[in-house]
Amino acid sequence: MGKGTLLYAQSGGVTAVINATAGAVIQAARARKVKVLAARNGILGALREDLVDTSKESAAAIRGLAHTPGGAFGSCRYKLKSLEQDQSKYQRLLDVFDAHDVRWFLYNGGNDSADTALKLSKMAAATGYPLTCIGVPKTVDNDLVVTDCCPGFGSAAKYTAVSVAEAALDVAAMADTSTKVFVYEVMGRHAGWLAAAGGLAGTGKDDAPQVILFPEIAYDEAKFLARVQETVKRVGWCVVVVSEGIRHADGRFVADAGGGKDAFGHSQLGGVGPLLAATVKDKLGLKVHWTVPDYLQRSARHLASKTDLAHAQAVGKAAVEYALKGMNGVMPVIVRTSQKPYRWKVEPAALERIANHERPCPRVSSTNPATASPPPAGPTWNPMVRGEAPPPTARTACRATCG
Amino acid sequence: MGKGTLLYAQSGGVTAVINATAGAVIQAARARKVKVLAARNGILGALREDLVDTSKESAAAIRGLAHTPGGAFGSCRYKLKSLEQDQSKYQRLLDVFDAHDVRWFLYNGGNDSADTALKLSKMAAATGYPLTCIGVPKTVDNDLVVTDCCPGFGSAAKYTAVSVAEAALDVAAMADTSTKVFVYEVMGRHAGWLAAAGGLAGTGKDDAPQVILFPEIAYDEAKFLARVQETVKRVGWCVVVVSEGIRHADGRFVADAGGGKDAFGHSQLGGVGPLLAATVKDKLGLKVHWTVPDYLQRSARHLASKTDLAHAQAVGKAAVEYALKGMNGVMPVIVRTSQKPYRWKVEPAALERIANHERPCPRVSSTNPATASPPPAGPTWNPMVRGEAPPPTARTACRATCG
Repeated sequence: MGKGTLLYAQSGGVTAVINATAGAVIQAARARKVKVLAARNGILGALREDLVDTSKESAAAIRGLAHTPGGAFGSCRYKLKSLEQDQSKYQRLLDVFDAHDVRWFLYNGGNDSADTALKLSKMAAATGYPLTCIGVPKTVDNDLVVTDCCPGFGSAAKYTAVSVAEAALDVAAMADTSTKVFVYEVMGRHAGWLAAAGGLAGTGKDDAPQVILFPEIAYDEAKFLARVQETVKRVGWCVVVVSEGIRHADGRFVADAGGGKDAFGHSQLGGVGPLLAATVKDKLGLKVHWTVPDYLQRSARHLASKTDLAHAQAVGKAAVEYALKGMNGVMPVIVRTSQKPYRWKVEPAALERIANHERPCPRVSSTNPATASPPPAGPTWNPMVRGEAPPPTARTACRATCG
Repeated sequence: MGKGTLLYAQSGGVTAVINATAGAVIQAARARKVKVLAARNGILGALREDLVDTSKESAAAIRGLAHTPGGAFGSCRYKLKSLEQDQSKYQRLLDVFDAHDVRWFLYNGGNDSADTALKLSKMAAATGYPLTCIGVPKTVDNDLVVTDCCPGFGSAAKYTAVSVAEAALDVAAMADTSTKVFVYEVMGRHAGWLAAAGGLAGTGKDDAPQVILFPEIAYDEAKFLARVQETVKRVGWCVVVVSEGIRHADGRFVADAGGGKDAFGHSQLGGVGPLLAATVKDKLGLKVHWTVPDYLQRSARHLASKTDLAHAQAVGKAAVEYALKGMNGVMPVIVRTSQKPYRWKVEPAALERIANHERPCPRVSSTNPATASPPPAGPTWNPMVRGEAPPPTARTACRATCG
């Protein structure tokens, strides 16, 4: 082993392929004879000095990570505050790093994790501790800026498209005497990429899903119901894909309409899917079914996208290369080099450009979603008309990463 | 074409492989130069004289049925009443059959469909119309008697086991700072076979699912909560698989507890999964997530069981053979000829033995579930202790058909 240790940690919601990134990190470091410690449960493991020595794991076990969903070392939902507010914690991290000779820190997560990695690198520089911090991208929501797409998204998108297509065939078969409307709730509290992925289930105007509701566009109940009714009349049935994060025009989440409590003060953990289903039943009198796949959509390794898996491994490998070169404060991102056929490469991007930013699903096409201008004030396409949604950018991104 | 036409129809909830049965029926009939008509939307298509001439479909299209979930010809939820009550409808069926020279009728469904096929065969015999009626098994609930298992169940069981296992890895990774309890709702209103299939996700005492709730055993909230709390304390997290059909001791469905309406009279289409999740949150104060896969579990052709597919095709092929031999009032059923390795064959069984019967998931092991004696009055195993559930019979049946 050479001098210095590499510390790897996972953060935020896990994906079908985040362990593939972990496996690639460990393999790349082993090839360079660098020891890898993994923090248990993200940054918390570093704060608690709860570290896993991956050098004790066999090559077969490390290879197996590529096929294992979830987060092998545990993840966390925990965000460090500013350097001023959480100074003692940042100092604690550097103390733990020093005790284990950690010279390279790889934080695998979304934009919060990019922020943590960035802050830590600044703290290290300020105190003269020799540390290279790298953010490694991951999120099923696909809401990181700069990168063409996020490892984890392609697999969740493929899961969504396949599941919507399969369920739609079921609905179509039953509609004559049974369910006429099917509501499919997808993840994505602030960005509609997974909702858009549901649109890949079909291609024709009357294919499912006939209605897609995005968090980026205010929910309009009357318009929604009219579209469902019209679709059932024309097609015989209707499939709705709805993002968990759709909001009313005043910004309130539709799912929070009841305040999360029933008349007796009991929690209602209904989600927006069953809520819309009840609305369709009450207002249109149609028989309705709904699904909330929840964690299934982000852990479905059995249905992972090949391209997504390749992305996940490539960013892990690149992260180790950048780290050992001392490229502090960067993230390996996916760059699209060809649209058709889809070709890509990995390049470093400054964490400053990525931390705390969010990329919504764009309403208009652009040659590169990473550099797309902000959406115009008014919708230029209507997400509720199947023929128009998702927009070319979202469609292309999804198709490319679902392969 | 020889004299006479074969009429095929699909009934009840569709499965990932019911179209594979349809394809096998059509291929077997073509090989015998028998024309196949398919009724659109089950028996309703026959009543309406809405029939599809499958001879106009290419061999490739028919082959494609084996890979297509849903019901290609449409299904229905429609049960004919007794011969006395619905006499005019039975007569209408025979008139339509006569107009199209239908000599063989294959009804692909559950025990209601077996009942319809049986009644129709009796009516035909009484009126002297030469008709051979065959029931063809299908149901994800696996609740038909006599047959070793039902085509459609194995794929839904595999979907459930895989999804529970994948989601459990997600929960385990997040439990330190996020979700500690995950509730997975499966289909099966009266029989717990799919709930038992969830148990295949793990093998050790602390593997997911640590709790399985069956419709066959009364729901006991206090016991349920105690088990969840104890599991979270010991393992750090807990996965619950719950059948949509669990009941209170007085027989009421737990899912119907709120009467399906909120305080404003709006429909609550929550399902039992979110209901249990809310109970865990309110009573134990634990962070909880839940999933209701709904139609996804029965349409997931992408994850179909190879054995299930073979069963589905074998019963379709056998149904045509039995029909052409004039074996009226039978159903091709799966017979297990070897436990390990799992081997099986198809044999005819009288519809009289199958129609209107239901096979619950047994509490005790028996050498052959098809001939299992009724469950004893008291539970001899506790479904809420992971180490004991599912019972050997259910486990073996599931493992065998998930392959």
